[in-house]
Amino acid sequence: MSDDAKRDLKALTISVLGGTGPQGRGLARRFAAAGLTVVIGSRTSERGAEAAAGLVESLGGGAVTGGSNAEAAAAGDIVLVVVPWDGHKELLVELKDALAGKIVVDCVNPLGFDKQGAYALDVEEGSATQQAAAVLTGSTVVGAFHNVSAVLLEDPEVASIDTDVFVLGDEREATDLVQELASVVPGMRGVYGGRRRNAHQVEALTANLISVNRRYKAHAGVRVTDV
Amino acid sequence: MSDDAKRDLKALTISVLGGTGPQGRGLARRFAAAGLTVVIGSRTSERGAEAAAGLVESLGGGAVTGGSNAEAAAAGDIVLVVVPWDGHKELLVELKDALAGKIVVDCVNPLGFDKQGAYALDVEEGSATQQAAAVLTGSTVVGAFHNVSAVLLEDPEVASIDTDVFVLGDEREATDLVQELASVVPGMRGVYGGRRRNAHQVEALTANLISVNRRYKAHAGVRVTDV
Repeated sequence: MSDDAKRDLKALTISVLGGTGPQGRGLARRFAAAGLTVVIGSRTSERGAEAAAGLVESLGGGAVTGGSNAEAAAAGDIVLVVVPWDGHKELLVELKDALAGKIVVDCVNPLGFDKQGAYALDVEEGSATQQAAAVLTGSTVVGAFHNVSAVLLEDPEVASIDTDVFVLGDEREATDLVQELASVVPGMRGVYGGRRRNAHQVEALTANLISVNRRYKAHAGVRVTDV
Repeated sequence: MSDDAKRDLKALTISVLGGTGPQGRGLARRFAAAGLTVVIGSRTSERGAEAAAGLVESLGGGAVTGGSNAEAAAAGDIVLVVVPWDGHKELLVELKDALAGKIVVDCVNPLGFDKQGAYALDVEEGSATQQAAAVLTGSTVVGAFHNVSAVLLEDPEVASIDTDVFVLGDEREATDLVQELASVVPGMRGVYGGRRRNAHQVEALTANLISVNRRYKAHAGVRVTDV
């Protein structure tokens, strides 16, 4: 990432809705460790504040605060949605006005689980990202961070996250910025992965990576070659 | 790959249905170059034989013959299906008896194209691989080789294909063997990617890689990290 882009991101607030789950907590940790201003959103203001305080303590500093998902949505310039699929649409409907004019990064994987492992759920709008775009008509919706291992993100011993992040969207300025956001994490790289209409398979690929993890006892990620 | 596995594959015949298209031709080239016995199938016996002769000439040797898709299906122990999505089901229905008892590797990506690029098509059975399994009830159906660049496969100057191949299937012995088949190509590695029900997103990911190729002027592939 260029110094310019890094300076730009440092002027912005990154909010993480669902920032107290493993994936959201892990992403918040990595962004804060890179020196970005982070707001952790949760179901209650107290839980968000508690998670933020815990993260600052664990990192020995950092510009991290916390609040309710609504407070985090209002505070962020870039707002990551890292909530369970169950309740995804309802939360976005509730926060639609607070998220207007912002870049919203949907990170949600609509998956089901049974004895044979994980599988992709059918989504009426095509994907979680497209559902977010359908609800948040006043926001710029990007899909990203679908295939990143929460275990690695959360592990303070893991210095580098060896994976690419597919960034999906229809607005170039927004996808460029989210690629830069992914690239602040050491080892991680944001790669443009196509339009929102091609988000489903990137979300669903997480089911395959869960199968890979089970077979190989790994925390698999994906690298795009020749890029 | 172990010497044992390589010896096993060398005792088998690998047929490529649709072996005169870029992807099929490229895969046939790489398997023949690795010393395997290959049969190229095409719409007519003449076209298959012609492609085989051309490949032997280009490689300066190799155990490659050609024929109709029906002849190739009958000859193969492992039969790759590398035909256009349009006509996929009809061909499999036609060859159902010839393919019984064999390992069938579906490599087909159901994609549509418009001004905005490629996108995944809806498939009634869920994916091309699942459609093949639904039709070929007497065969063992595996999905693989979805995301490999035909341009790289066909380029004699490219010595190593720097990509992993997701291998999807419900029968361990068959997916193991197809992983080994992928791994005979220098640089390429077969990685178990889950059950057939998770094939759709791997097929559809080719649409994303087409977007990547356009944006970065690349021939993108995918590597699985931590495996």
